[in-house]
Amino acid sequence: MRTHSETSSSDGVTERLFTLGEIPGVLWTPVGAVGTRPLVLLGHGGGRHKKDPDLVARARRLVTGHGFAVVAPDVPGHGERPVDEEYDRIARANQARIAAGAEPAPLIAAFQALVARRTVPEWRAVLDAVQALGHVGTGPVGYWGVSLGCGLGVPFVAREPRVRAAVLGLGGASASAEAAARITVPVQFWLQWDDERVPREQSLALFDALGSPDKSLHAHPGGHGEMPVREPDCTARFFARHLG
Amino acid sequence: MRTHSETSSSDGVTERLFTLGEIPGVLWTPVGAVGTRPLVLLGHGGGRHKKDPDLVARARRLVTGHGFAVVAPDVPGHGERPVDEEYDRIARANQARIAAGAEPAPLIAAFQALVARRTVPEWRAVLDAVQALGHVGTGPVGYWGVSLGCGLGVPFVAREPRVRAAVLGLGGASASAEAAARITVPVQFWLQWDDERVPREQSLALFDALGSPDKSLHAHPGGHGEMPVREPDCTARFFARHLG
Repeated sequence: MRTHSETSSSDGVTERLFTLGEIPGVLWTPVGAVGTRPLVLLGHGGGRHKKDPDLVARARRLVTGHGFAVVAPDVPGHGERPVDEEYDRIARANQARIAAGAEPAPLIAAFQALVARRTVPEWRAVLDAVQALGHVGTGPVGYWGVSLGCGLGVPFVAREPRVRAAVLGLGGASASAEAAARITVPVQFWLQWDDERVPREQSLALFDALGSPDKSLHAHPGGHGEMPVREPDCTARFFARHLG
Repeated sequence: MRTHSETSSSDGVTERLFTLGEIPGVLWTPVGAVGTRPLVLLGHGGGRHKKDPDLVARARRLVTGHGFAVVAPDVPGHGERPVDEEYDRIARANQARIAAGAEPAPLIAAFQALVARRTVPEWRAVLDAVQALGHVGTGPVGYWGVSLGCGLGVPFVAREPRVRAAVLGLGGASASAEAAARITVPVQFWLQWDDERVPREQSLALFDALGSPDKSLHAHPGGHGEMPVREPDCTARFFARHLG
């Protein structure tokens, strides 16, 4: 894990930009933090990156409000990572098929399942490296990710026993129902009622498929990109309850 | 409005038992309250009554936590009200039809629509009487009701302009989709994912039918009677946000 910069802000958040092998990431911790604390991994959306303003705001809230550590890696082909030629070719082929009238949801789901084969081991390695830091340590881990972050998050949470609670959403069951059934930790699942990208029945089917006895569905009117502004408070309380 | 008893408890809640015409009710207010405050009307479930332990706990939380007034009337045929022969006859006929294999949901919905023809004007009269009290006054009004309280609540909220926010749930669209479409105030809607009495599609259809631009669906695993214990906190915050 190589640190490239470390800056602290007056609201008490230290931000460290790092790379782990070929994975660029950002770690947020309380200024002057000492000892073990809960860690939340954020999975960004498609076409976004580790320092997307939404992600940064969410991370700062978890650090300042709860003293957590928060880490966000760039997904392959996103942010500071080079264009991935295989992914790019598949994405272009999918766009052509959608333009020719194909259903987008199964194509998106299959693509996300392909990317997850890389991100699941990458994110496990990120947890290893970050938890080896003295001011993070091996405390409980949470995962937050919607849209692409849900498609990649479901197989990650299913596979990684350190994750004790997860916030997922804006994703459907096409590719991930089997992995979802293996998730047993508490899950908060967010659905946009008028999502133009994920069919409602697909989202409801993914919530249904989750194996967790403690799961809750939160649905609001609006399209894929219109999650309500109150959501960060609600997810912060959820993580505080299960990791704090 | 005739008051039959008034008791105050050490946690700061005054409980007044009253009758308004033939309607028995209970009003909870902060001890020593002076002046106008938000008022929440609670609609109890089928076979329950105005002093059901769940209702009492919910009312006390709104009084002690937020300084609200809370009122709960007995629905006809429930609590201290006499058996209603017409309702009783219909309920017995429905039970026989369900035992013979009929779908319960449409029968229950039709029955609730019949009862609502009485409860809508009764509850409006209760608001008039309670808001005439100096320590309640004409502040914003909220409504809370699930199950029977949802079946009766949808037409009430649709009809009563004083209601500015409503919590509904455990009910389906069979009889009330048309009234639901006329509701435009913020709504929090609760659904039990494994509800054995209300088919899931019916519940989702009722949420879908609500005309409110600001509405949220909260779904949890479990049967009709197993709403999560965290729900009262969430609804208290909702009322505080919209009435406080």
